[in-house]
Amino acid sequence: MYTTNAFAAPAAGAPLRAMTIQRREVGPRDVLIDISYCGICHTDIHTVRGEWGERSYPIVPGHEIIGVVAAIGTDVTKHQVGDVVGVGCMVNSCRECVSCQAGEEQYCAKGVIGTYAAVDVDGTATQGGYASRIVVTEDFVLRIPDGLDRAAAAPLVCAGITMYSPLRRWGAGPGKKVAIIGLGGVGHVGVKLAAAMGAEVIVLSQTLKKREDGLKLGATGYFATNDPDTFTTLAGTFDLILNTVSARVDMDAYLSLLGTGGTLVSVGIPPEQLALHTFSLVMGRKTLAGSLFGGIAETQEMLDFCAQHNITADIETIPAREINKAYERVLASDVRYRFVIDVATLS
Amino acid sequence: MYTTNAFAAPAAGAPLRAMTIQRREVGPRDVLIDISYCGICHTDIHTVRGEWGERSYPIVPGHEIIGVVAAIGTDVTKHQVGDVVGVGCMVNSCRECVSCQAGEEQYCAKGVIGTYAAVDVDGTATQGGYASRIVVTEDFVLRIPDGLDRAAAAPLVCAGITMYSPLRRWGAGPGKKVAIIGLGGVGHVGVKLAAAMGAEVIVLSQTLKKREDGLKLGATGYFATNDPDTFTTLAGTFDLILNTVSARVDMDAYLSLLGTGGTLVSVGIPPEQLALHTFSLVMGRKTLAGSLFGGIAETQEMLDFCAQHNITADIETIPAREINKAYERVLASDVRYRFVIDVATLS
Repeated sequence: MYTTNAFAAPAAGAPLRAMTIQRREVGPRDVLIDISYCGICHTDIHTVRGEWGERSYPIVPGHEIIGVVAAIGTDVTKHQVGDVVGVGCMVNSCRECVSCQAGEEQYCAKGVIGTYAAVDVDGTATQGGYASRIVVTEDFVLRIPDGLDRAAAAPLVCAGITMYSPLRRWGAGPGKKVAIIGLGGVGHVGVKLAAAMGAEVIVLSQTLKKREDGLKLGATGYFATNDPDTFTTLAGTFDLILNTVSARVDMDAYLSLLGTGGTLVSVGIPPEQLALHTFSLVMGRKTLAGSLFGGIAETQEMLDFCAQHNITADIETIPAREINKAYERVLASDVRYRFVIDVATLS
Repeated sequence: MYTTNAFAAPAAGAPLRAMTIQRREVGPRDVLIDISYCGICHTDIHTVRGEWGERSYPIVPGHEIIGVVAAIGTDVTKHQVGDVVGVGCMVNSCRECVSCQAGEEQYCAKGVIGTYAAVDVDGTATQGGYASRIVVTEDFVLRIPDGLDRAAAAPLVCAGITMYSPLRRWGAGPGKKVAIIGLGGVGHVGVKLAAAMGAEVIVLSQTLKKREDGLKLGATGYFATNDPDTFTTLAGTFDLILNTVSARVDMDAYLSLLGTGGTLVSVGIPPEQLALHTFSLVMGRKTLAGSLFGGIAETQEMLDFCAQHNITADIETIPAREINKAYERVLASDVRYRFVIDVATLS
C-alpha cells in the first residue's frame, strides 16, 4: 500500500481538507503515477456535496489528472517509468460488454468505474486526483504527447473529451456551423476544438461579457441568450449545438436554432427534468442527444489532435490550500476558464 | 374551375357535412385526379376541430388520397390519364431551399404547403381528399404501383411514409431491434415495414389487447406498457424506438429501453411539452428525435417497397356519411387500423 497525501471531503457539504489515503500496491498491469496537476471540474463539486446521490466519505475528487509514471507492474507494456500520462473520468470497466468492446468504456453495461466515488473491481473505493499519487490499470492511462503544457493539458482528459467526442460523432468540420452554449471550463475547450476541426463556431452565452475571449478562442460570432433577438437572428442556423450548461434552459428556443436534420447535444446534466415540445423536434427532423465524455481510444485521439493543433485549456493554477475558495469561484462562474491544482503543493 | 362534391367541416368543432367546393383549372403542370379513396388520419380530426391552431373554414380534410388521373396539363410529363396515383400530406413547396433541393420538401424553409388547411402558391386555400376530385401540381403526385389494393394503399402516403422515413434514416434492418410504441393506424404499418426491412420488431402497447394482431403483422414480441415489468425486461434492448402516440408519455422510461447510441423518434405530437431528464440521454449517448412524414422521392420509394413486399394498411372502408361516426371511433381507438372513405359514395 502507498500512503498518499490528498485533499478530501470528509463528509457531504464539508470543506475539503488535507488528509492521507492509501493506494493499492502496483499489480502486474498497474501503473503508479506521481500526480503533477489535477483540474477542478464542476462534477467534483456536485459529487462531494452529495448533490448527485449519496456517497461514502471521505471522497478525494479529481478526474483531470496529469502526472509522471513512477513505477509499473510486471506485465505493463503500454507505459514506462518517466512517461507523462493522464487519467480522466474513469479507471476501469468490464472490458467484455458490447460498449467496452466497441471502445466506449464510458457506456459499460456493467457500469463504468469512475475515477473517484466509485467502487473498483477489487471492492475498494476509488479516490481521485487531488492527491500525490494514484495507481491505475494501464489500459485506462493516457499518453500525454510532447509539447502540451502539463498543467493546461489536465482539463483535456475530461472537459476536452467531453466536447471532442460529440463534435466528432456529429460531424463538426468544414462547412458545418456549430454553436457552443456556455463559455465555461468545458465550453471554451469546445470552441477551440470545433474551430481546429474547421467548423464555423458561434458562442451562445447569457451575456456578452466574455465576447472578446470567445472570439480569441476561435469563435466567429458571439451572441447573448438574454437578448431575444438572438433567437430570431440565428433561427435555423446550426448543424450542431453543444449545450454545456448544467441548468435548465429553454430547450424549444435552442432547438429553433437548428437547421433541418440538426442535432443539439447536451453534456451538462441539470438535476431537474427539461421540458420541450415534440413539435420542436418533428418540424425539421431535429435530434436532442446526450453524450458522456468518451472512450479511452477516442480520448487518446483527442490528446493527439490537441498536440497537433496546440490546444490546451485556459487555466488558473492554484495551490491545494485554495481548493475550497476555488469551488466557490467555480459556482460563481468566476474563473477563466479552469482551475488546475498544482499537486506539488500537497506534499 | 371544377365544382366538386366534398365532405367538409363548416366550422371548428362542427360535424362534417356534404358540400361542394371549387377546384382550380388544370394548369400546364397540373394533374386532375378523380379520387377513389381517402384515409382518415388523426391529424384530420385535430385540424378540423381547431386543436392545432385557428384555421379558415370550411375545411375539407384528407391527405391519404388515391385516385385515377382524369386530365393533365399541357406540360405534364410524369403522369398520364388513367394512371393510378396518390397524394399525401403536401401539395407544393418552394422547390428552391436547401430542404427542397435535397428532396425533403416536408421541411421546406418557406413552409411546406399542406394538402388542406394551407394556402397554396396561388393564394387559394388548399382542400383535401374527402372530395371527388383534386388538382395537384405533377411533382407532388405519386405513382401507385400495380398490385397494391387501392383502398388499402391510401394510408401509405401518410401513415406509411411517416414510419418508413425514420425506419430508413435510423437504419432499421437485419440485426437491429426496433420497438413501435402504439399499435394504431400509423404503428401497425410501422410493424409491417420494419419487419419487411428485416429488423426484429417489438410492439409496446398500453395493454395486451391487440397482441395477436401485432404478432400477425410481423412483430416478434408484444409488451404492455401498463406493466412495470416491461421496463425491466426490455431495459437497454432497442436500437430504435418509434413513438406513434400523440399523448404525453414517460419519456425517461422509454429512453431506458434504448441500448447505447439508440434513438427514440417521435412522430406523434402531443399538445403539451414532454419532460425528460438529460441524464436519460447522456448515459448511453441516446438521442430523441422527431420526424415529419417524408419527401416526395422517399414516399415514392416507400410505395415501391410496399408493392415489392405486398404491404398495405389494414383498413375498414366506410361511406362518406359515416365520417363523423368514424371520427368518434378513431378518438376511442376503436378501429383496426385505419378508416378509408369510399369516395364514390360522395357523388
